[in-house]
Amino acid sequence: MAKAAFIGLGIMGYPMAGHLIKNGHEVTVHNRTRSKAEKWRGEFGGRMAATPREAAEGAEIVLTCVGDDPDVERVVLGEDGVFAGLGAGRIYVDHTTGSAELARKLAAMGKERGIEVVDAPVSGGQAGAENGALSIMCGGEEGVFERARPVMESYAKACSLIGPNGAGQLTKMVNQICIAGLVQGLAEALNFGMKAGLDMDKVVAAISKGAAQSWQMENRAGTMCKGEFEFGFPVDWMRKDLRICTQEARSNGARLPVAALVDQFYAMVQARKGSRWDTSSLIHLLMYD
Amino acid sequence: MAKAAFIGLGIMGYPMAGHLIKNGHEVTVHNRTRSKAEKWRGEFGGRMAATPREAAEGAEIVLTCVGDDPDVERVVLGEDGVFAGLGAGRIYVDHTTGSAELARKLAAMGKERGIEVVDAPVSGGQAGAENGALSIMCGGEEGVFERARPVMESYAKACSLIGPNGAGQLTKMVNQICIAGLVQGLAEALNFGMKAGLDMDKVVAAISKGAAQSWQMENRAGTMCKGEFEFGFPVDWMRKDLRICTQEARSNGARLPVAALVDQFYAMVQARKGSRWDTSSLIHLLMYD
Repeated sequence: MAKAAFIGLGIMGYPMAGHLIKNGHEVTVHNRTRSKAEKWRGEFGGRMAATPREAAEGAEIVLTCVGDDPDVERVVLGEDGVFAGLGAGRIYVDHTTGSAELARKLAAMGKERGIEVVDAPVSGGQAGAENGALSIMCGGEEGVFERARPVMESYAKACSLIGPNGAGQLTKMVNQICIAGLVQGLAEALNFGMKAGLDMDKVVAAISKGAAQSWQMENRAGTMCKGEFEFGFPVDWMRKDLRICTQEARSNGARLPVAALVDQFYAMVQARKGSRWDTSSLIHLLMYD
Repeated sequence: MAKAAFIGLGIMGYPMAGHLIKNGHEVTVHNRTRSKAEKWRGEFGGRMAATPREAAEGAEIVLTCVGDDPDVERVVLGEDGVFAGLGAGRIYVDHTTGSAELARKLAAMGKERGIEVVDAPVSGGQAGAENGALSIMCGGEEGVFERARPVMESYAKACSLIGPNGAGQLTKMVNQICIAGLVQGLAEALNFGMKAGLDMDKVVAAISKGAAQSWQMENRAGTMCKGEFEFGFPVDWMRKDLRICTQEARSNGARLPVAALVDQFYAMVQARKGSRWDTSSLIHLLMYD
């Protein structure tokens, strides 16, 4: 069992840190808003630290799950950051979905201090975090990954090393680019079927075993047709991810014609006050126009 | 067992008619190019007719699987067409993917003659036809559908009635619109991953159980990354289907921003001599540019 610190008790981090302690690890938490850390300690026990640095002191592994690149930099770097407290030979794992560029930069900065770094964005959403069934895609060195893996498996159903630092983030981007085109296609198709007057339950039953099948169809077609979006993975987060994808694509030369267009559609969903709606709300633009 | 006639012995119809006779039905075939019908008779037995009308005479059920709306009209209507030979109370099933408008028109014209009509486009491709594992989505009256179903089940793993005449075609369009967005999203994602230098086998293994999962990812990611497109569902056919989708959308008011864009991408694939390539060849535009 490891001495672990978990930083960032949001929708994802809160239950992830809970699984850590339930799996027998010794857990210290830190959260920018202190009251959430107090709530977490009330529910799970463990310790609470005033700063990321304090959380990291004495820890064998520090895990973070915050919002975006600047949040990660604030938590990790600087006087009160993780790197100021974490000892040489220890491991820092970042579960935030962020840029591969930052993942590589942190790995290089960690190396100077003898700190091992793994970028480890997750998929599976809030339900995956709560059920301890996330998929984690990692970038880093194999020996380091193998040391961190048993800790991450507290809340993962799958945890894999894809390549060197940054590869975890890049894999998450591949995932999000798939989803952008896929959900838009599904939205257009379901809206078309409804406009054509079809019984969509029958339609989905008929096509959901063949070449159009997808997780999104199986899990979202019903709510999309009903216009229910108050759950799931928020549009704001998806736009953040697509921003990272399109930025990375500028440097690696990949074109993303549909992902970039879908990002603009999500901007339209935001304009409809849908910032917190699920990613599947793309169909709102087609249904109500 | 039924006295059946099957018209159109193409990549799909040839094995479908073969399954019919293997399942004990009495089968008469007709094909525009006579040599194919002769080849079929050499392989399976059965009878051969000189015209669709002759094939329909004495049949209890006539099934067609040809190319496009004009082909269906040529085979069904006119002096030598199916309707000229088929008796009152008999059933005509069209497996061609075509417009809902034509499906409704043929149903109305059939009704005047006492002929029952079912539109029944299929999915599952050449492999599905050969293995007798197609999915069939039908439009028509329930009693008629139930009479036709045991015949169609000779080559289907699933056969469902969605609604009135035209509903089968509309369901197939929903299927194809899903695929258009989905395959483009997958193509952008895989190309992005390759340009980023990722080991794509590891990436696909890591993301293929989650929210980005699809039949296309499971069955096409490997060939897409290798640039293999000489198989599967041809771009020319997909463009025909997307033409039907966009035409129907003009009348039902559904917008198809990505499906229409993807249709244009397929036009670019055609310009690269990819008319016969599989639908997954959208990635060619991103990989080789």
